[in-house]
Amino acid sequence: MRIALDATGGDYGWKPSVAGAAAALAAAPDLTVVLVGDRAVLELAVADLPAGRFEIVHAPDVIGMDDKPVEALRKKPDNSISKCWQLLATKQVDGLVSAGNTGAVVGAGLFTRRFLKGIRKPGIAAVLPTYTGKVVLLDVGANVHPKPSHLLRYGVMGAAFAERMLGVASPRIGLLNVGAEDSKGHDLAQEANALFRNSPLAGKFVGNVEGRDVHSGNVDVIVTDGFSGNVLLKYAEGLTEFLLKTVQQEVILPLTTERMTAAQSLKQIALKYHPSASGGAPLLGVDGVCIKCHGAADERAIANALTVAAQNVRVKLNERIVEELATLPTVSDEE
Amino acid sequence: MRIALDATGGDYGWKPSVAGAAAALAAAPDLTVVLVGDRAVLELAVADLPAGRFEIVHAPDVIGMDDKPVEALRKKPDNSISKCWQLLATKQVDGLVSAGNTGAVVGAGLFTRRFLKGIRKPGIAAVLPTYTGKVVLLDVGANVHPKPSHLLRYGVMGAAFAERMLGVASPRIGLLNVGAEDSKGHDLAQEANALFRNSPLAGKFVGNVEGRDVHSGNVDVIVTDGFSGNVLLKYAEGLTEFLLKTVQQEVILPLTTERMTAAQSLKQIALKYHPSASGGAPLLGVDGVCIKCHGAADERAIANALTVAAQNVRVKLNERIVEELATLPTVSDEE
Repeated sequence: MRIALDATGGDYGWKPSVAGAAAALAAAPDLTVVLVGDRAVLELAVADLPAGRFEIVHAPDVIGMDDKPVEALRKKPDNSISKCWQLLATKQVDGLVSAGNTGAVVGAGLFTRRFLKGIRKPGIAAVLPTYTGKVVLLDVGANVHPKPSHLLRYGVMGAAFAERMLGVASPRIGLLNVGAEDSKGHDLAQEANALFRNSPLAGKFVGNVEGRDVHSGNVDVIVTDGFSGNVLLKYAEGLTEFLLKTVQQEVILPLTTERMTAAQSLKQIALKYHPSASGGAPLLGVDGVCIKCHGAADERAIANALTVAAQNVRVKLNERIVEELATLPTVSDEE
Repeated sequence: MRIALDATGGDYGWKPSVAGAAAALAAAPDLTVVLVGDRAVLELAVADLPAGRFEIVHAPDVIGMDDKPVEALRKKPDNSISKCWQLLATKQVDGLVSAGNTGAVVGAGLFTRRFLKGIRKPGIAAVLPTYTGKVVLLDVGANVHPKPSHLLRYGVMGAAFAERMLGVASPRIGLLNVGAEDSKGHDLAQEANALFRNSPLAGKFVGNVEGRDVHSGNVDVIVTDGFSGNVLLKYAEGLTEFLLKTVQQEVILPLTTERMTAAQSLKQIALKYHPSASGGAPLLGVDGVCIKCHGAADERAIANALTVAAQNVRVKLNERIVEELATLPTVSDEE
């Protein structure tokens, strides 16, 4: 199993990439990591990596977080993100991991256009905790102008992910909306609801769900457009930080004898729900595996993402997605 | 000052309405509450209300939470929500408060069409806590298909609200989006961004903000479409409950000597951020005051909403909005 790692695309450059690769390699004997970045820099950095378990592929250019994706991809052809996608497209790797500019990661993927049969727009999935387990939310930012047929396919892909990666036997799919009744919401939500109801997925579709249902455990997959999904995911990060800081200030600090104990438990919660714990967000619909990490990914985040990428390959996630996509009616080129 | 209270529209019927009215009347000597609902029921219920400070207006029909708004408004002409709006339209009251079906509250308002000059679509505003104070988020559900010109006017109204109701001298307005750069997001977000940049509000406009900025305190007003806003607001409710329950389970329960102290502090946080603490969400853009409470509004929520409604009238919020709207270019009928 070979995974390409965009070693220089994240906020913190090669350091967390190389340390994260070392941790992932130690945990998975069947893994080889292909480090993609400036060869001179990476060759000096690999002292901690086990011999024979990694390769370096030269990509001297770096796309910055504030670069405009399309422009940057054109002006910097030798960037680390595009190089990772080229390795995937030519089957030199089974998957790729990047903490780089999201627009550039998705854009370079769209440019290679190696999608699964039946997929016109890949979607980014995020995994969030619930009272009883986990929930898959998608799309969280790849596709801000989806059509109903895209949302239906996000349902297929999210359900396959819940099945193979989260061990949910019969995933329940919900559509994020402003109310429970089928008639609620804007045109996209109404049309997507009808499409789910009249599709082979109808048996798995529990209907509309609202923002307050996300963590309830009543649904395993939540489908939405990339705008609402991205807003919600980033909001989760902000509100979690706000509430845990408030608890720190107003609950933990006033304690005396048990302050340290309580502070340590709170820190565990913060670690558990920190974006770096999730192992990154898969871009589903690509022929191959692509995991997008948070730009501020640290060593733990990179290690988790490599581990998740390898696991996606092992459980044959894409084979399962293709099986399910084959049950859907074909869509026209415009869809 | 006279405020109409939809006394039977919420999940819990007249009980929290009458108790909430009693609490609000005790706190505001200039307030008269007009209870709207079934006269026979309300006449039996008013024992706790001070004589001379309330009136009852008969409205025998109730629109249920699961009723389809447009259909229900047509089939039940004598419902409590429509009656409140009629009282407002005929200037028999200065404002109204309802915990009823949101679609029906907004729909009945649209039907009376008594909007402020320059407003075609009112927006619901929610007030959320930040590290340094509060932030106004709008629209959170009145308008799921807004045009850029509606979002610009939400900016005007949100800023006036922050100024008059939250005491912010120079409100900073942000546009909710998937990234900070002006070019980010879907068509609506891009067009609205350009409209703000080229409007008299440009000096107050801080550009795009992301989900994680909501509680940061870096912005006083956040403008968005009613779909994303509604999803976010309901998500805040769900995630807050999820995180506080997790803290209860994993931080508070394992404590021994200080468990009670910590549990009480946590309860204070839960009360502070509970929807009933906010005093409801104003529907801005209406000629008069309209406060929409959560369907599950309790006595405290109703009392807070009546108090906020009275305060909106006292601070001449609408006069300020009209002043600011007059500085904008006129829009065509289609907008």
